Amino acid sequence: MNDFLNDYNQTVHPSLLKSFIAINNKKLAGYGLDEYCKQAITNIQKRLQSPHADVHFMPGGTITNLTVISHILKPYQAVIAANTGHINVHETGAIEATGHKVISVPTADGKLTPELIEPVLFHHSDEHMVQPKLIYISNTTELGTIYSQQDLKNLYQYCQKNRLFLYLDGARLAMALAAKDNDLTLPDLAKYTDVFYIGGTKVGAFAGEMVIFNNLSINQDFRFSMKQKGAILAKSWIVAVQMNELMQNDLYFQLGQHSNNMADKLKIVFEKAGLTFASKPQTNQLFVNFPNQLAEKIIAHYAVDNLGPIDDHNCCLRFCTSWSTQIDEIDRLDRLLQSWLS
Amino acid sequence: MNDFLNDYNQTVHPSLLKSFIAINNKKLAGYGLDEYCKQAITNIQKRLQSPHADVHFMPGGTITNLTVISHILKPYQAVIAANTGHINVHETGAIEATGHKVISVPTADGKLTPELIEPVLFHHSDEHMVQPKLIYISNTTELGTIYSQQDLKNLYQYCQKNRLFLYLDGARLAMALAAKDNDLTLPDLAKYTDVFYIGGTKVGAFAGEMVIFNNLSINQDFRFSMKQKGAILAKSWIVAVQMNELMQNDLYFQLGQHSNNMADKLKIVFEKAGLTFASKPQTNQLFVNFPNQLAEKIIAHYAVDNLGPIDDHNCCLRFCTSWSTQIDEIDRLDRLLQSWLS
Amino acid sequence: MNDFLNDYNQTVHPSLLKSFIAINNKKLAGYGLDEYCKQAITNIQKRLQSPHADVHFMPGGTITNLTVISHILKPYQAVIAANTGHINVHETGAIEATGHKVISVPTADGKLTPELIEPVLFHHSDEHMVQPKLIYISNTTELGTIYSQQDLKNLYQYCQKNRLFLYLDGARLAMALAAKDNDLTLPDLAKYTDVFYIGGTKVGAFAGEMVIFNNLSINQDFRFSMKQKGAILAKSWIVAVQMNELMQNDLYFQLGQHSNNMADKLKIVFEKAGLTFASKPQTNQLFVNFPNQLAEKIIAHYAVDNLGPIDDHNCCLRFCTSWSTQIDEIDRLDRLLQSWLS
Amino acid sequence: MNDFLNDYNQTVHPSLLKSFIAINNKKLAGYGLDEYCKQAITNIQKRLQSPHADVHFMPGGTITNLTVISHILKPYQAVIAANTGHINVHETGAIEATGHKVISVPTADGKLTPELIEPVLFHHSDEHMVQPKLIYISNTTELGTIYSQQDLKNLYQYCQKNRLFLYLDGARLAMALAAKDNDLTLPDLAKYTDVFYIGGTKVGAFAGEMVIFNNLSINQDFRFSMKQKGAILAKSWIVAVQMNELMQNDLYFQLGQHSNNMADKLKIVFEKAGLTFASKPQTNQLFVNFPNQLAEKIIAHYAVDNLGPIDDHNCCLRFCTSWSTQIDEIDRLDRLLQSWLS
Repeated sequence: MNDFLNDYNQTVHPSLLKSFIAINNKKLAGYGLDEYCKQAITNIQKRLQSPHADVHFMPGGTITNLTVISHILKPYQAVIAANTGHINVHETGAIEATGHKVISVPTADGKLTPELIEPVLFHHSDEHMVQPKLIYISNTTELGTIYSQQDLKNLYQYCQKNRLFLYLDGARLAMALAAKDNDLTLPDLAKYTDVFYIGGTKVGAFAGEMVIFNNLSINQDFRFSMKQKGAILAKSWIVAVQMNELMQNDLYFQLGQHSNNMADKLKIVFEKAGLTFASKPQTNQLFVNFPNQLAEKIIAHYAVDNLGPIDDHNCCLRFCTSWSTQIDEIDRLDRLLQSWLS
Repeated sequence: MNDFLNDYNQTVHPSLLKSFIAINNKKLAGYGLDEYCKQAITNIQKRLQSPHADVHFMPGGTITNLTVISHILKPYQAVIAANTGHINVHETGAIEATGHKVISVPTADGKLTPELIEPVLFHHSDEHMVQPKLIYISNTTELGTIYSQQDLKNLYQYCQKNRLFLYLDGARLAMALAAKDNDLTLPDLAKYTDVFYIGGTKVGAFAGEMVIFNNLSINQDFRFSMKQKGAILAKSWIVAVQMNELMQNDLYFQLGQHSNNMADKLKIVFEKAGLTFASKPQTNQLFVNFPNQLAEKIIAHYAVDNLGPIDDHNCCLRFCTSWSTQIDEIDRLDRLLQSWLS
Repeated sequence: MNDFLNDYNQTVHPSLLKSFIAINNKKLAGYGLDEYCKQAITNIQKRLQSPHADVHFMPGGTITNLTVISHILKPYQAVIAANTGHINVHETGAIEATGHKVISVPTADGKLTPELIEPVLFHHSDEHMVQPKLIYISNTTELGTIYSQQDLKNLYQYCQKNRLFLYLDGARLAMALAAKDNDLTLPDLAKYTDVFYIGGTKVGAFAGEMVIFNNLSINQDFRFSMKQKGAILAKSWIVAVQMNELMQNDLYFQLGQHSNNMADKLKIVFEKAGLTFASKPQTNQLFVNFPNQLAEKIIAHYAVDNLGPIDDHNCCLRFCTSWSTQIDEIDRLDRLLQSWLS
Repeated sequence: MNDFLNDYNQTVHPSLLKSFIAINNKKLAGYGLDEYCKQAITNIQKRLQSPHADVHFMPGGTITNLTVISHILKPYQAVIAANTGHINVHETGAIEATGHKVISVPTADGKLTPELIEPVLFHHSDEHMVQPKLIYISNTTELGTIYSQQDLKNLYQYCQKNRLFLYLDGARLAMALAAKDNDLTLPDLAKYTDVFYIGGTKVGAFAGEMVIFNNLSINQDFRFSMKQKGAILAKSWIVAVQMNELMQNDLYFQLGQHSNNMADKLKIVFEKAGLTFASKPQTNQLFVNFPNQLAEKIIAHYAVDNLGPIDDHNCCLRFCTSWSTQIDEIDRLDRLLQSWLS
């Protein structure tokens, strides 16, 4: 089956595998207290220009979101997210299961802004309603769009002013930071969020994400929350070793860029075919509008994500490229599309 | 202070107080196992024409909602509500605090319909999303509107077909059933919901609501949930005795009707003043659009609920009448309004 | 049926009922913002000699415990209780349902001491275990025993030293403070606990308890927690008015004393019959050891709580007196026992 | 540092690593829907002689326990565990965080029996207490002891009779099934538990456990619970591939046996030194009683788990061997001990 379904369909990047093999004879301390975890922490602190950043290693994205959010909030506090936000839609109520409301806000492009948050604060005025306390954003967003430095700075300053915390879900941070339009840096993330995570699973790791607390008033006893939620691997070093490798020589950003480049070529293929996009193509996810008949042909030949009907005659399909997508996969789709359209 | 703020601003209807005094020398079994609870159960079963209905006594509305909903749902299941629904807005995340997502749906009039629910079911297709399982409606709605018999029947049949449960919040059920436009009966509620509650606090009781399970596949061990949530009063008979009195001689419906009648007179006052309504006036809550200047005068003289701006020049105020509202309160407001407008 | 089953088997003390009737024509603000709640707050602050105490009105004991405890603790923190503690045994896992472990400690007499807590702290050393943070005690305990001033002071100082909070469940505080052996005062409770509650339901109120936070670092936004748990009555004044009446002229303590006096007379009846006690009789609960045959006779004539077998030939029954127990009820039991034993 | 601290201190067994490398170029379906997961399911169904067993892949032990237990229980139901049980002590209240009480029972050897459970059922008689519904056992236990076939059969039959479910935590199942005294088989586990898990992390996998539901009345929608708790890896095949390798040629049991053999040799070392054991040595964990002075020397040279004082002069240390323990590590400790004692 040809496949543009997701960016986690291949096990592990060869360099990460190699680094993993290299340490296989060592005896190491459990639960994140080993030398490789320490090394990964020092590395990322340097990259962030943030020597006091508090760093933790997690096995996956959903468990990272639920552990971080439930750690920060008091029982009656809520998190605000775009209505397309991963925690609002695709985590089976993981946040609510820890007791907290997700207040969802409709957006044009998957991005939150102070203007979108303002009315939520206005309407949550007393103890008959939840108390909004945390802003959840994703970069890239679930629609493949990205936050500029100014976007993030504005949001963070708004949060500061309104005593809100800002959390950035970086499952696809590599693709965001490697985007053509991007002007955000790792140090910006340290400066303009309270906490964020650097995703590995979608950038060549077989599993693993790295949480970074910049605000040291909200991370106290975080390891208790990790253990309670089952979010701390006995052999945590398997995440740290991969993260070290990803950060070395900027492999992380190269893999993000490769994903984006493949999407960029795919974008041209679709444009050539006269197709349009439901969301601005900026990174490795393309949301393409298809006439129903053409969509059926695609689905017969490709594993892609079908987002359902736009109207009676058209629907939207998501094409996702990854660190392991090959140029001939793009070419094959190009030829196929051309043959159908001619 | 003159007051159209809510329908729970006076302690208890004199008849209920009397019934309460009458039993004050008796020794009674605790936690709902006394003779008055039993009598109230038999009474309501007769009124509902439902001899097997399972009846419980609760101290208030929010705790009723959270106890019923958390009892019925499995951890990954969600409840669908109108976005104006009490559980979605005004219970400080009580449902989420028990672990469940409230999926909210925008509506024109505070009422859910199969057409509004259908897309939610369509989009919740697999285990990456919560599983919608319960429909929450209020009658009267939070906008003062009501469900017709056909409305409720349609919803219930839709739920049956889609393996959903239907729960009706009857905090203001008296006003709904006493509305001019109403054609619903108590036996209809037994037939066309899985579980509902008959509210007392807003209809002359000092506290207390009565939960009725019609679907006996979802109420097993409900008393365990009640005890766990702190929802079962040691002296539960204080609710039952009031419910008995309310049901006797249809006092319940008379108090609902009085509330509605007062609102109806108030409606005429506002219409005379050339004002319009943000929601169709059907029961004891009126949502009135005011020019800002006039609104300020109102607020200076009356305790009312300010729902905020509609546009730059107008805002919406809620006027709520109750079982204890007096006609001269309406007249006074009429005179005042006329004096400001002349 | 004769009845020594509990201390909440009669509706309401006549004085409380009277005060309740007196305000029945007033319009009052909802959710604890009315003048009677304010008055009750001022009253109790004076009695406690604690002008900044933060006071709230709740409908019952279990909901008070779960709301207070879940408000104070972070997700990974636990509460320590005697294994006989109400929250550990008789609240259907109410505390765990809010996410927190109850660490239970065996005791001789239902009372916690620093010596009993010390090993718990010793063994909870890292993030693989919950973090003990709150000490829960009851006065009277569930075994009818009481804390002396020195007991409480020791506990509180131990808590202070170990960064623990101390919470006292006062469901039967009236009986504790009215006990012969008691030397605790209301101001002591303000000084030597972080938070406690004054119980009404078991001392003549038809419902209602009053929570008092002495430590103002743990009560922030408590009304949010109250609303979320369904712990705040729309007509909160019905609790406040009763509390005002109970505190006026020391009625509260008189009712506690009456309960204890009746138990004292009952104790003499049992001693005369040659029976022994499983727990030191100090207040209104007597835990009496009975030969099985005699126990069966008692159970046939009286509603009492059977705590089960002590050994093959004996069992333990709880006799509970209350503010409404009459001396002739004691005399009747005395005559009956004598007739069976002669 | 010499190390008998745990059985998860080395990354991954070479055979598992090899199988992992072999599939690294494949594109695979996410979230457990790939061919390797299917193959692992078929394999284990055959080994269990249970063609309908429902099999799932999890990243770790704590998250497996909390996901399984919270999936099975209704909100007011509780799990019974030995007081030494992992869920009771070493998971930071993970089960309580999902809302459920862990009822802990003191045991002599870490094992539950019908006789130990019976009094718990007797005392949990009504809705004022939690409803015990699930029995949690570990094999090996946290004290290194094991369940015989008869032990497990007795427990299961008792559970069946009392409408309880039986769950077996198999974090160290390999060591249990490879123990000298063992007579349990994999098919027995399918027959005599409702659900259990086969642990990988402590038997040479870098992460991963395999949950097996035998009772198909309690596993409905389990994938929803997995997703909600963050318990389902995007690349689930990384667990399945390791499990396939472990099950092939009985590697799993060989690694368990090696762990036990090393412990057996260590046991002889301690016996030679005149030391005694706090728990019967049966598998790869030895609980050794040490005079304090000797213990201090050990701790200076070895990473071991110190379980604290037994009395004023002695304490208990845990020595844990693993699939990667080498015989010369035992010999070195032997020589060291002898040198200190001579």
